Amino acid sequence: MKKMKRNERIGAIVKVLSDKPNAIFTLSYFTELFNSAKSTISEDIAIVKSIMEELNLGKVETISGAAGGVKFIPVLNKEKKEKLLNNLVSELSDLNRIVPGGFLYIADILCNPRYIKEVGEVFAEKYSHSGVDYVMTVETKGIPLATLTAERLNVPLVIARNENKISEGSKLSINYVSGSTGKVQTMYVAKKAIPNGSNVLIVDDFMRAGGTIKGMEEIVKELNSKVVGACVLMETKTPEIKMYKNYMSILFLEGIINGKIIIHPNEDILK
Amino acid sequence: MKKMKRNERIGAIVKVLSDKPNAIFTLSYFTELFNSAKSTISEDIAIVKSIMEELNLGKVETISGAAGGVKFIPVLNKEKKEKLLNNLVSELSDLNRIVPGGFLYIADILCNPRYIKEVGEVFAEKYSHSGVDYVMTVETKGIPLATLTAERLNVPLVIARNENKISEGSKLSINYVSGSTGKVQTMYVAKKAIPNGSNVLIVDDFMRAGGTIKGMEEIVKELNSKVVGACVLMETKTPEIKMYKNYMSILFLEGIINGKIIIHPNEDILK
Repeated sequence: MKKMKRNERIGAIVKVLSDKPNAIFTLSYFTELFNSAKSTISEDIAIVKSIMEELNLGKVETISGAAGGVKFIPVLNKEKKEKLLNNLVSELSDLNRIVPGGFLYIADILCNPRYIKEVGEVFAEKYSHSGVDYVMTVETKGIPLATLTAERLNVPLVIARNENKISEGSKLSINYVSGSTGKVQTMYVAKKAIPNGSNVLIVDDFMRAGGTIKGMEEIVKELNSKVVGACVLMETKTPEIKMYKNYMSILFLEGIINGKIIIHPNEDILK
Repeated sequence: MKKMKRNERIGAIVKVLSDKPNAIFTLSYFTELFNSAKSTISEDIAIVKSIMEELNLGKVETISGAAGGVKFIPVLNKEKKEKLLNNLVSELSDLNRIVPGGFLYIADILCNPRYIKEVGEVFAEKYSHSGVDYVMTVETKGIPLATLTAERLNVPLVIARNENKISEGSKLSINYVSGSTGKVQTMYVAKKAIPNGSNVLIVDDFMRAGGTIKGMEEIVKELNSKVVGACVLMETKTPEIKMYKNYMSILFLEGIINGKIIIHPNEDILK
């Protein structure tokens, strides 16, 4: 390959880093890719770092030592976060979303990358330095959001199932009370899905009392691993005391009051 | 904001475009972002285009007309595709994957963004000019792959459910024969999930006879919409005649023969 100009190297470095957030790339990776000296690449990376900071596009971190290199940490800037919160609140407050039985139809939002990619980015930013090994969710509606969070953190996803599927080998199961149905349900996780000593981040779409998240935490403990925290798109105002405490949510659903859907954004994420 | 250098603009343009593939950005979007003249931005974009082509990082397309602008189309280069195929075949041929009952444990691969993000990119590349409005899958195991395909195509995902959930309003349902269980199952899709006249791309993890995909096609037809094609990670060699024809797969599972798992990659995707 012919020698590249700085312009071209910069563009390519941005592409490589932002395509694989939270993955470490060594300096040698780039010196080989561009057939350039280490000093040249170091300068390139310094420029990429300042572009990202200046335009609030994310953070480029340098990791020193033998396993060192650079990695990109996605950061959604304040302006984008505000826009995301506003869009979510106005979309979800639409009265057409109330379906027979008084439920709120949110499946489309939970399946739309235009929203949940950025929500996943907010989750990933908060947990980018927590040594997360796995993102975990329970089927079904939270899976797309959990997938995009796992992608941003560059770790695998684990899906707890509500049925004992024969194609997944030996399982751990646990009974829990689901807040949405009020019934005792069972969730199953393949034993080989989470190795001993893993750090697990739980991601789910909706949280009422937190029984489902508590159930996932119990499974994780049984697998000799640890939950570092939980992230949910929306929590209900009641019950105020949740069964799992260490969580963040993006939206608070107060309820459907006098024919209006009352949702508040979590302003803390703007800080 | 202070005037940016070309280096910096190039880096930022690459970031913006590759973060939202298949979305159209107008020239004005960038002239405002950088406070620069149209002619300057046009030159920047030409450079970004050539970087992407030279390094096989994707395609930047210019769309002319009133709704015109530029968009980024992810393309996985041949080298990366070969590596992906080799990695998938060697991972999935591991004998430790055989679980009691003779099933192949593949849930971890289906949940690992390190593999399925690139698989989704292969699917999105093939269908980037097909006017896809929705990606559709059926719960559960194919959801992460379908999510990442939808993200790359910048369209929403629709998940067909195996149970009639009360929280999603009125539904269309259809009975189909699942190849993995051999039983008649029912799938449900919220009527409001797919508007009339939509183009739908089906994504699933595994295909035996294609009954599940055929079922999804019937639902899409009932919603006065059209399936433009189907993409699956793995198909089985038998039965050779599939109920749905217009599909692509990444891997062929010949079977577990003499204690060995025989999987072939689909070499066609390298062309």
